[in-house]
Amino acid sequence: VDFWFSIGSTYSYLSVMRLPEVESRTGVPFRWCPFNVRDIMVEMKNIPFSTKPVKAAYMWRDIERRAAMYGLPFEGVPPYPIHDLARVNRLAAMAAEQGWCADLAQATYRYWYQKRQDPSTDEALSEIAANLGRDPEQLMAMAQSDDGGRQLELRTAQARALGIFGAPTWAVGRELFWGDDRLDDAIAWQRRGTLSGARTP
Amino acid sequence: VDFWFSIGSTYSYLSVMRLPEVESRTGVPFRWCPFNVRDIMVEMKNIPFSTKPVKAAYMWRDIERRAAMYGLPFEGVPPYPIHDLARVNRLAAMAAEQGWCADLAQATYRYWYQKRQDPSTDEALSEIAANLGRDPEQLMAMAQSDDGGRQLELRTAQARALGIFGAPTWAVGRELFWGDDRLDDAIAWQRRGTLSGARTP
Repeated sequence: VDFWFSIGSTYSYLSVMRLPEVESRTGVPFRWCPFNVRDIMVEMKNIPFSTKPVKAAYMWRDIERRAAMYGLPFEGVPPYPIHDLARVNRLAAMAAEQGWCADLAQATYRYWYQKRQDPSTDEALSEIAANLGRDPEQLMAMAQSDDGGRQLELRTAQARALGIFGAPTWAVGRELFWGDDRLDDAIAWQRRGTLSGARTP
Repeated sequence: VDFWFSIGSTYSYLSVMRLPEVESRTGVPFRWCPFNVRDIMVEMKNIPFSTKPVKAAYMWRDIERRAAMYGLPFEGVPPYPIHDLARVNRLAAMAAEQGWCADLAQATYRYWYQKRQDPSTDEALSEIAANLGRDPEQLMAMAQSDDGGRQLELRTAQARALGIFGAPTWAVGRELFWGDDRLDDAIAWQRRGTLSGARTP
C-alpha cells in the first residue's frame, strides 16, 4: 500500500504516528510517499479549513478524539498552517529516497504536534536532526537542495497523475482511499480487492 | 443520537439506507433530523464537489465501494446535484414532525440512487407517494407548504447553532461526528463518552 502524505497535513499526524505499529501487526507493507499536497490543493482551489472556521474547529476536535482512540498524545491545537511546507517535504522526499522517511516524518510530527511549534524553521530542523542523530547542517542542506526540489516535484506529479487531491491518501494500484480513516479500507482492498464484508456496519 | 441529514447529500444515501438495521442491531435510538445543508454550505462558501471534478470522481467511487461493503445497491452515479433540494427537505421536515421521516427518506433515496432520476420533480414525488401508500397531491402540498418551509428553516437554524457544516452529521449532545463513516464513533460516544478503545486501529 502506498502511503501518500505531506508533512503539514493535519490528519496525517494520526497516520504517520500509528503506521509502523499497523504495519507490524497486519503484515501489510507500506511505502512512504511524501508529496506536496498544498500545490495540488491550490490548483484545485480546494481550501478545506483556512477560510472555514467552523469546519476547522470540528477537524481539531475530531483529531483529538481519534488520537485518544489510537493512544496518541494530543495536547492542544498545533500551529496551522505550517509556514514552509515545501521545505520539510523536500527533506521528506530525500529521506524517502534514502530509506529513512518514516523516522523523519515521525520526528517532525512529534515536534509539530507535541511541542506545538512550526516544524519548518531552522530551529525545528536542528532539533529534529539532533533527535534523529543526524547532522543539522546536512539536514538543512538537503531541505534546500535542488535534488530535493526535483524529487518532491516528481512525486507530486505522480500523485496528481493518480488523481490524488488530499492527504493522506492510500493507494492500492490505482484504487485510492482518502483520509486516515480509510486505512482499514485500503488494507481490506489490498488483501481481497473488495470491501464487501470488511466491516460490520 | 441525532441524525442530521439532507436529502441531496450524496453520502447520506449510505446512512439513510442502513440506519434502521443499525438501530435494531445496536439498540441505539436515532432521531431523524432533516435540515437544509445547502444553505449552510453556501454561507460557508463550502463547495466540496461541483467545482472539483477529481474529488467528485473519487467521491462516487468511494460511495460505490462502501455501498457494496454495506450490501446496498449502487448501479451508477445518480443525477447530481438534485434540482430542488429545499422542496424534498421541506417534505422531510414535515414527515419528521409526523413520525414517518425514515420511510420518506428511504423511498426518496431509492428513487434517486436506484432509479437514478432527480427526486425533487413532480413525477418523482408522485411515484414516491405511491410507493409509500400516500396521496400524491397531499405530498406535493406538504412539500410546498409554509409550514414545511418554517419547519425546515427552524431545523436548519438548529443545525447551524450546533456547528454543523455538512451532512450527514451525528450529534450526541453537543459532540458532532461528520460523515457516514463516523457512525461507529457516534455510537461509541453515546455508549461510553469516549472513543478510546473503540476500534483496533
